[in-house]
Amino acid sequence: MKREKNIIGIAGLGLMGCSLAISLKKSGFAAKIMGWDINPTHSSAAISLGYADAIVHPANMPQCCDLIVIAVPVNHIPDLLKQVLDRCTNQVVTDLGSAKHEIEYLLENHPNRSRYVASHPMAGTEKSGPDAAIPNLFTHKTAIICNKEKSDSDALTLVSGMYKSLEMQIVYMDSESHDYGCGLISHLSHVCAYALALSVLEKSVDKETISVLAGGGFKSTVRIAASSPDMWVPIFMQNQKNLIAGIETCIEKMCAFKNAIQSGNSEKCRELISSANTIEDYLAPNNSPPMEGSGVGIPSLGGVGGGSTHPQPLQRRGVAQFS
Amino acid sequence: MKREKNIIGIAGLGLMGCSLAISLKKSGFAAKIMGWDINPTHSSAAISLGYADAIVHPANMPQCCDLIVIAVPVNHIPDLLKQVLDRCTNQVVTDLGSAKHEIEYLLENHPNRSRYVASHPMAGTEKSGPDAAIPNLFTHKTAIICNKEKSDSDALTLVSGMYKSLEMQIVYMDSESHDYGCGLISHLSHVCAYALALSVLEKSVDKETISVLAGGGFKSTVRIAASSPDMWVPIFMQNQKNLIAGIETCIEKMCAFKNAIQSGNSEKCRELISSANTIEDYLAPNNSPPMEGSGVGIPSLGGVGGGSTHPQPLQRRGVAQFS
Repeated sequence: MKREKNIIGIAGLGLMGCSLAISLKKSGFAAKIMGWDINPTHSSAAISLGYADAIVHPANMPQCCDLIVIAVPVNHIPDLLKQVLDRCTNQVVTDLGSAKHEIEYLLENHPNRSRYVASHPMAGTEKSGPDAAIPNLFTHKTAIICNKEKSDSDALTLVSGMYKSLEMQIVYMDSESHDYGCGLISHLSHVCAYALALSVLEKSVDKETISVLAGGGFKSTVRIAASSPDMWVPIFMQNQKNLIAGIETCIEKMCAFKNAIQSGNSEKCRELISSANTIEDYLAPNNSPPMEGSGVGIPSLGGVGGGSTHPQPLQRRGVAQFS
Repeated sequence: MKREKNIIGIAGLGLMGCSLAISLKKSGFAAKIMGWDINPTHSSAAISLGYADAIVHPANMPQCCDLIVIAVPVNHIPDLLKQVLDRCTNQVVTDLGSAKHEIEYLLENHPNRSRYVASHPMAGTEKSGPDAAIPNLFTHKTAIICNKEKSDSDALTLVSGMYKSLEMQIVYMDSESHDYGCGLISHLSHVCAYALALSVLEKSVDKETISVLAGGGFKSTVRIAASSPDMWVPIFMQNQKNLIAGIETCIEKMCAFKNAIQSGNSEKCRELISSANTIEDYLAPNNSPPMEGSGVGIPSLGGVGGGSTHPQPLQRRGVAQFS
């Protein structure tokens, strides 16, 4: 998408913020990047690496930026978002947070709510900090935009334009469905990887033996166990309800394997593995959602909310609307 | 390592056997490959793809091969291995199995035991069959040789030479330590990935939503959940005792996460994640075991065996001897 160059503020100069800066400069979407991080070492690094052109406090970003991106761990998003949104007139704010419902709730009655676009680019690595930033982190990935009906259309256009300039695909969801799905898919993966790493570390093993026996399967499964607690503790806490339900199901499945193996029940074990194998069909490249304008997808549901600890499976809720 | 070309028999023409065939021809270690698979479609594919030069039943391989590699799922190894070993004079037999102790036990009193080298190249993918074979599957990976004291030195030289021709590093272990370590590291990873896949499939989710929300973290963690039950059911059953202990520990760790998250105990959650993060140190390239002749490593322990359901952690046992 071709459009005028923008001045972008990025509050949070870690892996995500700096990778975004690299890509937005490369795509030409950003004329200038105003950066900020609570950690001055990150700010200095971002300047010296050329990711940010100047350091500006988030509260001052609305004075000089068209679009402000909050790229900090989810527990710090509400406070920064509010500081920025309080000062917005026609500027736009978005965030990159992996849990959306709580932020949405906190901003519900903010007078400038419509200048905020709740977004979540599905990208990242197990690393953190500006030194871990990489070009093309976002390329060809999906960016979720939540509760689009609460944002002004020019704000949506600007944020979508930013993601499209990175060759990302936009998908619309409501924040509750987003958090339910991410809790089950992304957040639960992290708990599994952390639990596997802790098990291997506890039950054995000297460095050499882990190195020797760590084949590609283990390395792939455990990779994200290197992900930072600064990022993941707040996500786990904000998405508590959904994640707990996922962990409970995963424990049930591990118990099913344990029982099948312990009782020598090969048939049951084969059944479990064969069912698990079908995950591959859902990850195949040709199952990528259709591109903008294809008309597939079901309108997102707002306000499904509520106290149920066992929300309906997503296929019965209809969550994704593709753009 | 430069040596005369050999005629190699490969019994089992799936991903492992065919990938080995490709590499052994490329490295020049094999002059000819005699192949066989119980599935005639695999045999035909291996011939037409040029991986095998002729099809020979394993029982006849000792007549025409210098080295016979048993590359079938672990439950079929003992029978084939015995058929081949019964007919060996100066030929050598090895296998690629991921569980070693039961095979070792079954062959204990075989008159030709010393012509067998128990090996396990730490390589593979989640795919299976000859069409999934890839060049360089083994390159720069580790090959474990178990209980080397039970094999003739010329047999060890031949099998080590094969792996070294693929630029693999050889590590020596006893079969019990091998199975303990693999149960914890490789086999437990598979149970985790299968359990994650089953959870995601059960608790949600339509294809589009999995595709949309599956970032790199989920894909990496769940990748090996596509691995075949034909291969993994027998491994789980043969390595029952070690794997059950691993699964129990992993369930404990998942419960620890659940409790920390449920009670909003961020500090405990941070502690768990920070501990898990240290797995990265053990996977760093500079923690690869030293190459042959460095003198690091502790002699492998034979006959630790026995009925303990909680074997000592590996660091107290001293398992790996590098070559």
